[in-house]
Amino acid sequence: MNKPRLALLSVLLLSALSFAQDSRTMATRSWRQANEHAIISEYVEFLKIPNLAADPANLRRNAATIQQMFEKRGVKSRLLELPGIAPVVYGEIVTPGAIRTVMLYAHYDGQPLDPKEWASPPFDPTLLDAALDNGGKVIPFPAQGQPFGPEWRIYARGSGDDKVNIMLFMAALDALRANKVPFKSNIKFIVEGEEEAGSPHLADYMRQNKALLSADVWLICDGPMDQSRRQNIVFSVRGVQIVDVTVYGARRELHSGHYGNWAPNPAMMLAQLLASMKDENGRVLIDHFYDGVQPFGELEKKAIAEAPQNDAKLKHDLWLGRTDGNGAPLLELIALPSLNIRGMASSRMGAQASNVIPATASATIDLRLVRGIDKQVQAQRLIEHIRKQGYFVVDKDPDEQTRLSHPKVAKVVVDTGGYNAAGSPMDLPISKLVIQAVENARGPVIKLPVLGASVPLFMIQEVLGSATIQVSTANHDDNQHTFNENIRIQNIWDGIETIAALMSM
Amino acid sequence: MNKPRLALLSVLLLSALSFAQDSRTMATRSWRQANEHAIISEYVEFLKIPNLAADPANLRRNAATIQQMFEKRGVKSRLLELPGIAPVVYGEIVTPGAIRTVMLYAHYDGQPLDPKEWASPPFDPTLLDAALDNGGKVIPFPAQGQPFGPEWRIYARGSGDDKVNIMLFMAALDALRANKVPFKSNIKFIVEGEEEAGSPHLADYMRQNKALLSADVWLICDGPMDQSRRQNIVFSVRGVQIVDVTVYGARRELHSGHYGNWAPNPAMMLAQLLASMKDENGRVLIDHFYDGVQPFGELEKKAIAEAPQNDAKLKHDLWLGRTDGNGAPLLELIALPSLNIRGMASSRMGAQASNVIPATASATIDLRLVRGIDKQVQAQRLIEHIRKQGYFVVDKDPDEQTRLSHPKVAKVVVDTGGYNAAGSPMDLPISKLVIQAVENARGPVIKLPVLGASVPLFMIQEVLGSATIQVSTANHDDNQHTFNENIRIQNIWDGIETIAALMSM
Repeated sequence: MNKPRLALLSVLLLSALSFAQDSRTMATRSWRQANEHAIISEYVEFLKIPNLAADPANLRRNAATIQQMFEKRGVKSRLLELPGIAPVVYGEIVTPGAIRTVMLYAHYDGQPLDPKEWASPPFDPTLLDAALDNGGKVIPFPAQGQPFGPEWRIYARGSGDDKVNIMLFMAALDALRANKVPFKSNIKFIVEGEEEAGSPHLADYMRQNKALLSADVWLICDGPMDQSRRQNIVFSVRGVQIVDVTVYGARRELHSGHYGNWAPNPAMMLAQLLASMKDENGRVLIDHFYDGVQPFGELEKKAIAEAPQNDAKLKHDLWLGRTDGNGAPLLELIALPSLNIRGMASSRMGAQASNVIPATASATIDLRLVRGIDKQVQAQRLIEHIRKQGYFVVDKDPDEQTRLSHPKVAKVVVDTGGYNAAGSPMDLPISKLVIQAVENARGPVIKLPVLGASVPLFMIQEVLGSATIQVSTANHDDNQHTFNENIRIQNIWDGIETIAALMSM
Repeated sequence: MNKPRLALLSVLLLSALSFAQDSRTMATRSWRQANEHAIISEYVEFLKIPNLAADPANLRRNAATIQQMFEKRGVKSRLLELPGIAPVVYGEIVTPGAIRTVMLYAHYDGQPLDPKEWASPPFDPTLLDAALDNGGKVIPFPAQGQPFGPEWRIYARGSGDDKVNIMLFMAALDALRANKVPFKSNIKFIVEGEEEAGSPHLADYMRQNKALLSADVWLICDGPMDQSRRQNIVFSVRGVQIVDVTVYGARRELHSGHYGNWAPNPAMMLAQLLASMKDENGRVLIDHFYDGVQPFGELEKKAIAEAPQNDAKLKHDLWLGRTDGNGAPLLELIALPSLNIRGMASSRMGAQASNVIPATASATIDLRLVRGIDKQVQAQRLIEHIRKQGYFVVDKDPDEQTRLSHPKVAKVVVDTGGYNAAGSPMDLPISKLVIQAVENARGPVIKLPVLGASVPLFMIQEVLGSATIQVSTANHDDNQHTFNENIRIQNIWDGIETIAALMSM
């Protein structure tokens, strides 16, 4: 057994042996054990309502159903509406003398799908006795009083992403009420129906309902848990900015025999330009590229050291003979800004290739942003770097005169859909409180200072000034965004305890 | 008027004023002037025979017709045959006491065509009073005794490329015979029918008929003249070697947020690899890349200095703000070996692009070769360079173990269709003789030590040991390889004088 695996095993053993749930969580668990049938029955009915962007009538049915679920539990709720847009369901529990306001976010829409790819109809929730990939077989839902197996799974679109969290809100509320646990915070809920489309109107809803949607923290209840099946909390997400670069040779492709060595080759120019941006170890060489990066504090360092280190296994699984970053771990590296060539093209390849000097060469680049680095500033640093390599930079196709009067011309187009990073330092009081609440209920959690991926949470900070923290409950192998989406039963049971802990903090 | 144009004009004036044709050429001209109608009539009938690879029966009719044209002139001829292949027409004139043997090469096949693109049927030769692009109108062929305008053009497939040279062989023979010019050399003719398909069997014909096809020099009577309309002689052509390079990241595309900065990006690796191959001015940095290059002698330097310098105009026409090679002229640069990226690709561009780290990145490269640099040696230098950049080089898709055990892996595939450069130094006695013969007839010619493009003449040198020199007669704007191919009448008249001079040298 290699070192990282040994370390991982030690952590798992340690958490299993040393942790005892607090009494409130034990009460939540007892309530759940007595109510499994009702919880799952309500969820199955909810999953039957199709939730695709192409089916706005059913999206509205989902919103109305969620509102009814809130109302049934005495949560004051309303639909926030914009013309022609899937409504946002808002709910709130006002707590007299509340010391803070906590917003719980989830979404009811699901990814588009092709039913032909599914083993069972996506809106006919189906119970299996294990994951389909592990030979799971369809079984009937158990009768009242019969237990559910923890490894069983419910297959349906939205089961893991993200209707499960809406169901968890309801079950946690029921458990807390049943056990007469007092609330300390005002609790707000926002459940949107456009997340899978990129939340294009969420900022509008926030601007129009600023007071209503403000909170000390937005808890983003979405996404899968760690591959080790341990609970994770993610404190920030990176931003992203796409930049397309095109460089030019002659106005048309040229015969490489008649003009080679004389007419500049834009593919070579692009290669030289891109090569100037990074060293052999993947360090970005653009001036000021890392300016603004806030170094990890002790808390973040400790959290990363304690997180499962999957690097060696990943490297092997991905057939990588080396990694960038001088051997630094993945979790540290994805906390830095990055420059990635996501595509590159010049002329033709394979059977279509011919002996030409290409006329143009292009690359499309994604810049990942961290807190402290603005999307426009970072794009500008890239543009300055291109200028320093001798390029005259334009943002539209350069005309004859522009090309004749500059030795090197680059068209640089900065995408308008970029957005900044967002998140919260791990040592904010609210961050500590969230960690403590979840760990009291669930034991030691994986704390990730930064998620490598980008999620447009910046709008929450920008418009409302709220902190954002992501808490996931679905299994990592829930097939979110693809066919045969599913939720594992034990993740539901654990999720109820997690959400209840967050509501009662 | 800019300097280059002034220089060009001076050269043209100088040649027009200072040159007086030799008496033998004047005799050829007189004969032609008396026989224009017969020359053109025979040519028109010849052009009516379709000459496409897809029409083997008519290819054979062409070969038979050429043989009859030879026989009619007392030239001993035969068809060289390979099963299922368009025959090669061979002809010879044995000269008692000959001091050398001169082979005249041409081809009777034409490029594929789409008749719908043509202004007149491609096998119904049509006379125009000017180039179609310059407003030329269809006119009837003049009656016997009526003159042809020098700017008139005959439109038909093969008219410029390359049936014109076959017709010139016949007309020059007739002129020399009529004027009782004695031959000093043995004259051989080879007219093939597969040139436009890449002469795939010419080497086989040569191997099977080695003695028959040997000569002191093969004169390649093909291709267009210089754009200045001046006669050109080209002494060598470059070889070419295609090499495809692929580098690898992870075994599948990765989410650039979750893995960027950690998983190596093959597009960046390829950019760095390609950038290491050339400096900013286009000089190749691969070790030994220029080893073996034979520097120009005084003769070549003088020839290039005297050739029309089109660089400034080309640069402007092509919208180039600079050229590679530190300002060296095109004609010097294309005489060097070159490395050209003819295509490059990684992942996807435009609307198909996504935020991934690509799994692979590829480039296809053409290496142009000059005499003194072997195709395999040059490919090996490139491979060594790739190794020096830290790559483990394979020639097939690398498997898991190969990729895991090497930090960087490159697949390098050397195309099997490459061939070496070929040609003759300008100061060979036979080269000087050809120059002198053509200049006696036509005045100062453009002498190009090297054609930038590649033509597989190496096989002539390799199999037969013959020198090769290319003499073109067709107008530069003959639309060879495309629709509305044509030959300018004055080019026919001049061509008769050129070919007659070569036959009688």
